[in-house]
Amino acid sequence: MLGQQTGRTPVTSPDTLDFGFDVPARPGMTEAEVLTPALVLDLAAFERNLGKMQDRADAAGMKLRPHGKMHKSPWVAERQLAFGATGICCQKVSEAEAFVRAGVLDVLVSNEVRQPAMLDRLARLARGAKVALCVDDPGGVEAAATAAFRQDATLRLLVEVDVGAGRCGVQTPDEAVALADMIRQSEGLRFAGIQAYHGAAQHLPDAATRKEAIASAAARLKPVLAALKAAGIPCPVVTGAGTGTFAHEAASGLWTELQCGSYAFMDADYTRAIGPEFEQALFVLTGVMSAPVPGRAVCDAGLKSLAVDSGLPLVSGVECVVYEGASDEHGTLSDPARQLKPGDKLRLIPGHCDPTVNLHDWIVGLRRGKVERLIRVAARGKSW
Amino acid sequence: MLGQQTGRTPVTSPDTLDFGFDVPARPGMTEAEVLTPALVLDLAAFERNLGKMQDRADAAGMKLRPHGKMHKSPWVAERQLAFGATGICCQKVSEAEAFVRAGVLDVLVSNEVRQPAMLDRLARLARGAKVALCVDDPGGVEAAATAAFRQDATLRLLVEVDVGAGRCGVQTPDEAVALADMIRQSEGLRFAGIQAYHGAAQHLPDAATRKEAIASAAARLKPVLAALKAAGIPCPVVTGAGTGTFAHEAASGLWTELQCGSYAFMDADYTRAIGPEFEQALFVLTGVMSAPVPGRAVCDAGLKSLAVDSGLPLVSGVECVVYEGASDEHGTLSDPARQLKPGDKLRLIPGHCDPTVNLHDWIVGLRRGKVERLIRVAARGKSW
Repeated sequence: MLGQQTGRTPVTSPDTLDFGFDVPARPGMTEAEVLTPALVLDLAAFERNLGKMQDRADAAGMKLRPHGKMHKSPWVAERQLAFGATGICCQKVSEAEAFVRAGVLDVLVSNEVRQPAMLDRLARLARGAKVALCVDDPGGVEAAATAAFRQDATLRLLVEVDVGAGRCGVQTPDEAVALADMIRQSEGLRFAGIQAYHGAAQHLPDAATRKEAIASAAARLKPVLAALKAAGIPCPVVTGAGTGTFAHEAASGLWTELQCGSYAFMDADYTRAIGPEFEQALFVLTGVMSAPVPGRAVCDAGLKSLAVDSGLPLVSGVECVVYEGASDEHGTLSDPARQLKPGDKLRLIPGHCDPTVNLHDWIVGLRRGKVERLIRVAARGKSW
Repeated sequence: MLGQQTGRTPVTSPDTLDFGFDVPARPGMTEAEVLTPALVLDLAAFERNLGKMQDRADAAGMKLRPHGKMHKSPWVAERQLAFGATGICCQKVSEAEAFVRAGVLDVLVSNEVRQPAMLDRLARLARGAKVALCVDDPGGVEAAATAAFRQDATLRLLVEVDVGAGRCGVQTPDEAVALADMIRQSEGLRFAGIQAYHGAAQHLPDAATRKEAIASAAARLKPVLAALKAAGIPCPVVTGAGTGTFAHEAASGLWTELQCGSYAFMDADYTRAIGPEFEQALFVLTGVMSAPVPGRAVCDAGLKSLAVDSGLPLVSGVECVVYEGASDEHGTLSDPARQLKPGDKLRLIPGHCDPTVNLHDWIVGLRRGKVERLIRVAARGKSW
């Protein structure tokens, strides 16, 4: 009945608590109070990771343009800029919009864009920010020029070179020069440099193989740069590299800019590949829902809270508990020592940070066991 | 310059087109105009699937409570109710909130809930809707009773029985009876029946093995129902089954309610398992970004647009093109006949519909090649 007083404990109105405020935590809470499943970030470890990578870039005399596709969060990008980054990368125009609107005004879309509507949106963005994108064929240059004309904007274009990833990118120096030349002759376009990212090398488990892969990438890149020089085309930027290989690109003397992303948060797969240089800062906090038989517990983080493309998550900080299987909303844990009971919370290290972050609207920033801030994953799901 | 007229084509303000309107399509567009990547739904096939499953439930004299965890969309739930469904299932309290607030007033959380804050939220929801949840231990009953008392609400509880999935659920008839009895003696709680879902059986590739699995589930369920009867505890609902096995639960005479979810949209994995009875209605529409070498094309749907836990997506409607690898924002296609060029769009059939839908905020509803409506995935990311 409306307005009825029941004499029990005060009943909180759902209007104030539930509507429009569906976040996993509030500043000041303890970690144990965070609603699960949730992404949590150890802010001190995160900051140490930012400092370490910026130092590495500075020491090599290179610029650092961290990849925003990993975190999709303008707040994280701003922290990276504060540590000295030159701008950020992203993969999609809608991501770029989320960053630029939040005040991140130097964004490279390190990817081809072929939808006229999205090229128009990028060109509009370029009127108030420094934005660039990649091309790997003459049709891409034409499409970008059309959008730049329609929107009365200037678009900065990088020619993507396939340096071994076997994905996008031109194959030969001649193609690269021809595209750079075409860009330079197109009204509304500016040739901004070369995109040379070896994605397939990043997660190779063996350090020597990663080094070889980047030596091979450099061998493909070098004649491209020589051909541009021979053609009298200045190439101000050569951008690429990731958390798995950046030391080799830095040592090559060919690249001018690093695009590492995962180093800021890290994940199980990268730690397996490159070791503990960067700290695991990101976790999926999960709660135990059930412990139905001795040795088995079930937690509340499954396929909709963590990505399993690079393996199942690792359990952090609890010995002998193993995450053995993910279904949509459940994780099955083996717990031979029967340490877990319903209501317990534990941290999982996701196999792959990028698609895991993309499942969440919020990252809970922790310091000294307390929630310091909520970080909006503003570009989550921005995939076009 | 502000207000400057350039003499070019009219420049649309980003305020009207971009801000607050980040959707992949508008009603009336053709499919080719939809921004990619995007989820698209063949509405006619979807409706035929709804009708077919409702007919199967009606013919068996059973209720159909489709699983909303698959689609996470109140609009889809309303269509299912319009076809005759009795209510819906979901897996999380925050999902239940999204459905109830949109007017779906009969929701079963077919899962354990052990966070006090979420039990409180569910109890508040129960004051205006018929909501239920599952328990599998005395602590779960106590926690639910506490929330019901705090919120002055009545919570309906089902006892989950492990019928072979090896996840949550009590193991023995005695445990089930003891929990049902405890629920009946708790103020603010009501014993609503038995949850008996064999999740592990749904995707078994062989039909005979699925049938055996449900025969085994029935053999576990039968003594539970007998023990409840012997204890004089009425059990109004026995709920379970999925798209892979529902015919067997229906034939058993033990279950009263079907919880199938995927039948409405379907996916590659279920079609491999159960054949074409239900039509593939859901697709990831993707655009080609690059065709850098003969035989290879790269599309714009990767791990952030489709789930790969049950295999890579299939290409629909184009012969000889195969989706061979997913990275975060790219799909690599083999195209030996060189049919694809940048800008082309094609439909992918996702391996697993549930986690794929959970990556998207919108489903584009198509009929006769045109966009009929945008369907909000209102419970996307509602995981606590």
